[in-house]
Amino acid sequence: MSERFYLPDLAPGRPAVLTGPEAAHLGRVMRAKVGDVVYLFSGDGWEYRARVEAIAHSKIDLAVLDRQHDDREPDLDLTMAVALPKGDRQKWLIEKLTELGVRRYIPLSVQREDIKVDDKVLERLRRQVIEASKQCGRCRLMEIAPAMTREKIVAAFPPAELNILCHPISDGQFGQVSFAQLAAGFPSVPKSALVLIGPVGGFTDDEVRRAVDDRWPILDLGRQVYRVETAAICAASLFLHL
Amino acid sequence: MSERFYLPDLAPGRPAVLTGPEAAHLGRVMRAKVGDVVYLFSGDGWEYRARVEAIAHSKIDLAVLDRQHDDREPDLDLTMAVALPKGDRQKWLIEKLTELGVRRYIPLSVQREDIKVDDKVLERLRRQVIEASKQCGRCRLMEIAPAMTREKIVAAFPPAELNILCHPISDGQFGQVSFAQLAAGFPSVPKSALVLIGPVGGFTDDEVRRAVDDRWPILDLGRQVYRVETAAICAASLFLHL
Repeated sequence: MSERFYLPDLAPGRPAVLTGPEAAHLGRVMRAKVGDVVYLFSGDGWEYRARVEAIAHSKIDLAVLDRQHDDREPDLDLTMAVALPKGDRQKWLIEKLTELGVRRYIPLSVQREDIKVDDKVLERLRRQVIEASKQCGRCRLMEIAPAMTREKIVAAFPPAELNILCHPISDGQFGQVSFAQLAAGFPSVPKSALVLIGPVGGFTDDEVRRAVDDRWPILDLGRQVYRVETAAICAASLFLHL
Repeated sequence: MSERFYLPDLAPGRPAVLTGPEAAHLGRVMRAKVGDVVYLFSGDGWEYRARVEAIAHSKIDLAVLDRQHDDREPDLDLTMAVALPKGDRQKWLIEKLTELGVRRYIPLSVQREDIKVDDKVLERLRRQVIEASKQCGRCRLMEIAPAMTREKIVAAFPPAELNILCHPISDGQFGQVSFAQLAAGFPSVPKSALVLIGPVGGFTDDEVRRAVDDRWPILDLGRQVYRVETAAICAASLFLHL
């Protein structure tokens, strides 16, 4: 993987200007010279090849030469709505969902937890998506939506073919199914899915019952107790490798 | 999940003595009193109920009351042989494999990397398994084996029903199969599996070719570029939820 730089609003033939930390990285860390060819991405699914034209103290001018479509995106359009964990675990969650090829992350608002997800938090998560994308070579940015309840998500986005709520308690109370049972029931491989993961302590009975009322399958990820981010990464892996 | 304490060599009716950090945790952090009932585990698959009998400065005596078998272990006996990543990612890998219910972790020795995995490193990994087990409620410790090559693993352990080498390059050169293709070919759900994940940069052609010669299926985890620990967690999730 060669060095990649993030720059919004790229287009072939249009000049590109790196500033701030990206310019420092290319200029001072990578010691770029005029004429060097590097790769840029804007998160739109294309990788741009660009030539360094001029290097100033805090700004590097590049000429976009051409672009290549990134065909490594998974076939499944997967939205993961996960109650945001705390501390370090946020960064891990975002990094891993980005690497796995999840299309959109929504901080899930739930009854058992009241984590404040304001614009500052969203901005940090978006920055983490860019960092993870630079390193894993993904050219489409995972979208970070504002925090929403299940009901709001359903109202705000086009319906997914598959809507799943993961509930770790294997008591069968809500007719939970295993992933193998769920997958065996698919008439064909779904093109889009929305998967919900609850907070520490899980969803409330009320939340699960409402999903059951909406005819959502309730997925049981097994007898182990997973942390929030573990359940999210595990579920994303299963759906993306259907 | 109530508070759990790790203590090797437990048995019903035998006295149990907590010392060191575990005693400090129960005595000073949890402010235990004589007569309190707590849970202990020794990593043997049982959870022990014990009553505090005496509290001294750096030592707590307990009486083991009874024990209950932990039936949350996955059905699949899964060994993950993964080239050990660096820094923080080691801890993360061990924590997640422990949570997911992997039976054994082997630091995989590979041609492209020469990370020193000495007794000190193994001791640290084992301590991380205990910490992760305390938190996720697992009562059987994931085994940490010394570093080995693929050939040594095959010689050292009883053969698994399924031997898989994951190779991220989707060039079809080695007849790679997707997980869906692999799973479709199982005559029945396997009881044991050994899954190998390579280092940054992947396995060498030589390493892959030798596995092909041994008739190992080569698993392609998709078009995305996964970090070592991401590939390991993803593959473990897939096999454990077959």
